[in-house]
Amino acid sequence: MGIVVNLDEGRDAKPSLDALTALVADDIKAVNSLIVQRMDSPVEMIPQLAGHIVAAGGKRLRPMLTLAAARMCDYTGTRHLALAACVEFIHTATLLHDDVVDESDLRRGLASANALWGNKASVLVGDFLFSRSFELMVEDGSLHVLGILSNASAVIAEGEVMQLITTNDTETGETAYLDVIKAKTAKLFAAACRIGAVVAERPRVEEEALDTYGMNLGIAFQIIDDVLDYSAKQATLGKSIGDDFKEGKISLPVILAFHRGGSEERLFWRRTLEDLEQGEGDLEHAIHLMEKHLALEDSVKRARHYGAMAHDALGIFAESPQKAAFNELIEFCIERAY
Amino acid sequence: MGIVVNLDEGRDAKPSLDALTALVADDIKAVNSLIVQRMDSPVEMIPQLAGHIVAAGGKRLRPMLTLAAARMCDYTGTRHLALAACVEFIHTATLLHDDVVDESDLRRGLASANALWGNKASVLVGDFLFSRSFELMVEDGSLHVLGILSNASAVIAEGEVMQLITTNDTETGETAYLDVIKAKTAKLFAAACRIGAVVAERPRVEEEALDTYGMNLGIAFQIIDDVLDYSAKQATLGKSIGDDFKEGKISLPVILAFHRGGSEERLFWRRTLEDLEQGEGDLEHAIHLMEKHLALEDSVKRARHYGAMAHDALGIFAESPQKAAFNELIEFCIERAY
Repeated sequence: MGIVVNLDEGRDAKPSLDALTALVADDIKAVNSLIVQRMDSPVEMIPQLAGHIVAAGGKRLRPMLTLAAARMCDYTGTRHLALAACVEFIHTATLLHDDVVDESDLRRGLASANALWGNKASVLVGDFLFSRSFELMVEDGSLHVLGILSNASAVIAEGEVMQLITTNDTETGETAYLDVIKAKTAKLFAAACRIGAVVAERPRVEEEALDTYGMNLGIAFQIIDDVLDYSAKQATLGKSIGDDFKEGKISLPVILAFHRGGSEERLFWRRTLEDLEQGEGDLEHAIHLMEKHLALEDSVKRARHYGAMAHDALGIFAESPQKAAFNELIEFCIERAY
Repeated sequence: MGIVVNLDEGRDAKPSLDALTALVADDIKAVNSLIVQRMDSPVEMIPQLAGHIVAAGGKRLRPMLTLAAARMCDYTGTRHLALAACVEFIHTATLLHDDVVDESDLRRGLASANALWGNKASVLVGDFLFSRSFELMVEDGSLHVLGILSNASAVIAEGEVMQLITTNDTETGETAYLDVIKAKTAKLFAAACRIGAVVAERPRVEEEALDTYGMNLGIAFQIIDDVLDYSAKQATLGKSIGDDFKEGKISLPVILAFHRGGSEERLFWRRTLEDLEQGEGDLEHAIHLMEKHLALEDSVKRARHYGAMAHDALGIFAESPQKAAFNELIEFCIERAY
């Protein structure tokens, strides 16, 4: 079941982002300057608000995918920098619109842009970043890249709408859940990776391999994210626990617990997640039911399955520090559950 | 002050959209099918919600600009159809996000998409249409068009943010007002017109002339829209009167009345539009002050000025039914004030 990870530096070390971060360190610096430079506008509220969310933007995981993929494909130019910034702009725009949508008060432990500036500003600055991203792509001049990212953007929006529909619907099955996370999360991972092969002008089979890697990595990443929302580990990441529960989001741990539970348990899930009638002790009871049915543990197993597919997709590439870092990234995404 | 309009059929007839509509009748049919076809998605809520707003979409003014401009430039192909659909998608996405932003309950007399489906859906379906628009442009394959429309989209978002900032600020001057309406309204008119010259591969001077026409037409159009919000004429359009007043929007009629009024009147404007403390009779008093200072009348005069610039921009084009229709359109946009 485990994934064989090809790490030069010690198999026992806890997987981390360190190798990947080190490999793209210079590139990501350049991307960060580009981001600051290109989100500028004479309308001061735009760089203020966008800067808030970009600064809070954590790991820069998605642009790092583009940067490392390009380097793994022996790309030696600079086009990947602007395109990595595009990917981050699309991600940031999605976050801003998510903040409106979920009425979430916290994102990465900081007050959400929404809470500080209001719904209106979040929607509009998201639109600005989204448009600016396309302007950057046009400057790059590749219709192929424009096609990949415009398609990804449409799919992301579809995924978010699907999520809207499945929220509060305990009848949601694992397939519908997968459709949602593929669209709203994994598609951008896939596109970010694929672009690396595109700028390096590698054959389509390598483009598709990187797409498959990104897609499966993204699925694993989102499953673990959803597990973390019911896990003590979450607190250490500065995110509150139980956000998904409060909103009635039907994530994989819920789906497994619901399907494995008896009729009385299903009444509990319907009351708390469909009717959103939640009281003292309900979150704890939900976690208890998940543990009873191994729902969290088995969600991680599902994530491992997608991680294994991501790993195998990279098989056609020669060994390289980037490939090793990509494989460690799979492990990192999954191991953060523990 | 008046604009000389070159109409074959009788100078005294009230200007209308009829000539323009007739000229693009076949093309707009094709655009409408394209719109329905390309806003489709397996996620049913998307065509439902998008269909609602597209159906309510009134005049299809912006895509008609692209269609007629292409024909005026002797274009005989079909690319203008998909690009006109792109323009309408961008406009529709903006409307959806506007509905969220303004918490407006009515749009064109129908319940807003927002009121029916909620803020969340409006944001996300707007994002979908926006992305779909870029997918369509990529299929068309012109980086020049992609550049024009991605830039327009970014400028529109900037304009909406500017409007957010000037709302409730009675210190807003006419220049700031013009900056807002140029960005949020006129820029898309300009881009829609310009694209017609681009597909026809006409020289840059004609592209720019059409851009200038669209920009000034858009400014005139928005000024009159803002006048209508304080005018009895508005009721006949199925739009409620006083929406801008209720929101504290600082439009040209307000700016003129504020600047021409005494200190007591300014207290009134500050109370009603900055503090949003509004009571019985306040809207009527606002209209009374506007009439007293000729604010509505002079706003229309300002619109005429931009209309005259739009008219002159078309001077370099040979006479044609499309050119005549474009000139009548200017008159129509202004005459609807009466």
